[in-house]
Amino acid sequence: MKYETESSLTAAVTAQFAKTPDPRLREILLALTSHLHAFARETALTIEEWSQGIEFITRTGHMCQGGRQEFILLSDVLGLSMLVDAIEHRTQSSATDSTVLGPFFVDDAPTRLNGADIGAGLAGDLLLVTAAVTGTDGQPLADADVVVWQCDEHGRYDIQYPGRDGYFLRGRFRTDARGLVQFWSIVPPAYPIPDDGPVGDLLTASGRHPWRPAHVHFHIAAAGHRSLVTHLFVAGEDYLDSDVVFGVKPSLIVDLVPHGPGTAPDGRVCPNGWKSLDHPFQLAAL
Amino acid sequence: MKYETESSLTAAVTAQFAKTPDPRLREILLALTSHLHAFARETALTIEEWSQGIEFITRTGHMCQGGRQEFILLSDVLGLSMLVDAIEHRTQSSATDSTVLGPFFVDDAPTRLNGADIGAGLAGDLLLVTAAVTGTDGQPLADADVVVWQCDEHGRYDIQYPGRDGYFLRGRFRTDARGLVQFWSIVPPAYPIPDDGPVGDLLTASGRHPWRPAHVHFHIAAAGHRSLVTHLFVAGEDYLDSDVVFGVKPSLIVDLVPHGPGTAPDGRVCPNGWKSLDHPFQLAAL
Repeated sequence: MKYETESSLTAAVTAQFAKTPDPRLREILLALTSHLHAFARETALTIEEWSQGIEFITRTGHMCQGGRQEFILLSDVLGLSMLVDAIEHRTQSSATDSTVLGPFFVDDAPTRLNGADIGAGLAGDLLLVTAAVTGTDGQPLADADVVVWQCDEHGRYDIQYPGRDGYFLRGRFRTDARGLVQFWSIVPPAYPIPDDGPVGDLLTASGRHPWRPAHVHFHIAAAGHRSLVTHLFVAGEDYLDSDVVFGVKPSLIVDLVPHGPGTAPDGRVCPNGWKSLDHPFQLAAL
Repeated sequence: MKYETESSLTAAVTAQFAKTPDPRLREILLALTSHLHAFARETALTIEEWSQGIEFITRTGHMCQGGRQEFILLSDVLGLSMLVDAIEHRTQSSATDSTVLGPFFVDDAPTRLNGADIGAGLAGDLLLVTAAVTGTDGQPLADADVVVWQCDEHGRYDIQYPGRDGYFLRGRFRTDARGLVQFWSIVPPAYPIPDDGPVGDLLTASGRHPWRPAHVHFHIAAAGHRSLVTHLFVAGEDYLDSDVVFGVKPSLIVDLVPHGPGTAPDGRVCPNGWKSLDHPFQLAAL
């Protein structure tokens, strides 16, 4: 008859999971059990604290509705997302650095043509983005899939507005024969991650701020190459050294070039001037 | 400028949490971060597997509705609930052994008087339960609060029926001057934990069955004493040696005494006989 004592319990649970047919799932479940139990033992977790944990994680689950993915936020602020990204990119490469996907990516961003303005009608300083997509050998990659997304001047993404009509500041482009994508947008501000839920409560309780430095997201996929998920961060702005999700890498911090009133290279008349951002992206071959 | 590499990332996250004002929360967050990161590193968790994990935990959160608490189920099948219970009861004591609370406890069980039938009108073999509540010194504890709950003949608890009218097979009693609680119920069967959600999928994928051996739950609180959360398991029944939540302890396995057709001690006429369960509960003084 089984009586699992504190010392025998972990072995009893791992003995059950040791029967898992899939070897990779078995490996993950055994490691999960052993670290979860070690965490509880080391902290001498009380039943009251366990209850608070159950309540926290349940609230986190209930917060995942519509455009809100609170578990990705939780993974982000715990550094898990960046760690998994780092593990996936352990191999040395001259490819562009990756960073977190974040909770605001969507699968069905609207298709846009080169030259489109994804911020049309929105307030903000005009920004002309030119992305040059190549392999690590420098050869241009034509017909690559480039999804971009960013926040508006209030620091919010389209999917954070419950009553919105369609997407904005988001688009799916294809590189031309020279491997180029070009589009108009606005200069993004820094923003706090959504902090009115359990993750915000966690940050408050731990004395951490909820801010991310200003950035534009890129998800780039080209035939025969490893997909790239990354951001470009705006140089000189706040929170570059304290990103709440630990996502900043120096190679991803870029200068915006200011331009006075006049006509942009594509013929757009900009009475208040504009800024431009030109950046190369190198994708590793598969 | 920060560029967190795989090796520096954990230190960067713990440096952020090290500012947590509350020392106990700080200790828990630092241990959580370090074990979560070690788990990801050891398994070399991929982004695809991380995504599956996010999806799993999000589905688990969405499953927590009404009478369903999927995160407690998850904690139970991972052995975490029993481990936390064991940690909380590290001190040696002659008190009755504890076991998991489980996901079917409710705060507002209906008040019942001694002698009540919490299974009135339900199918099943009649069971007369007599609980004697004392301190570890053997002195009866009068006016103790005794909450009991169990499943019906289909292996389901009242709160698992969406359209139910009120509670059944559940009640809040008070011990009399002799420290006794007595009530009628039915003999509970073994039952599978709810396995139509993510936790059921996990059990299936790991080749584990979802069954718990037959039992009655008790939550006993008396002034000046440590509260007791426990079960009594029915001797000789299935799954005593493979409880899916690892909750069985030998001291909690009890024999039911069968009685032929006739009149029970409290005067109830039982044409088909009845079974009786008498058990002492010792509570540790605070």
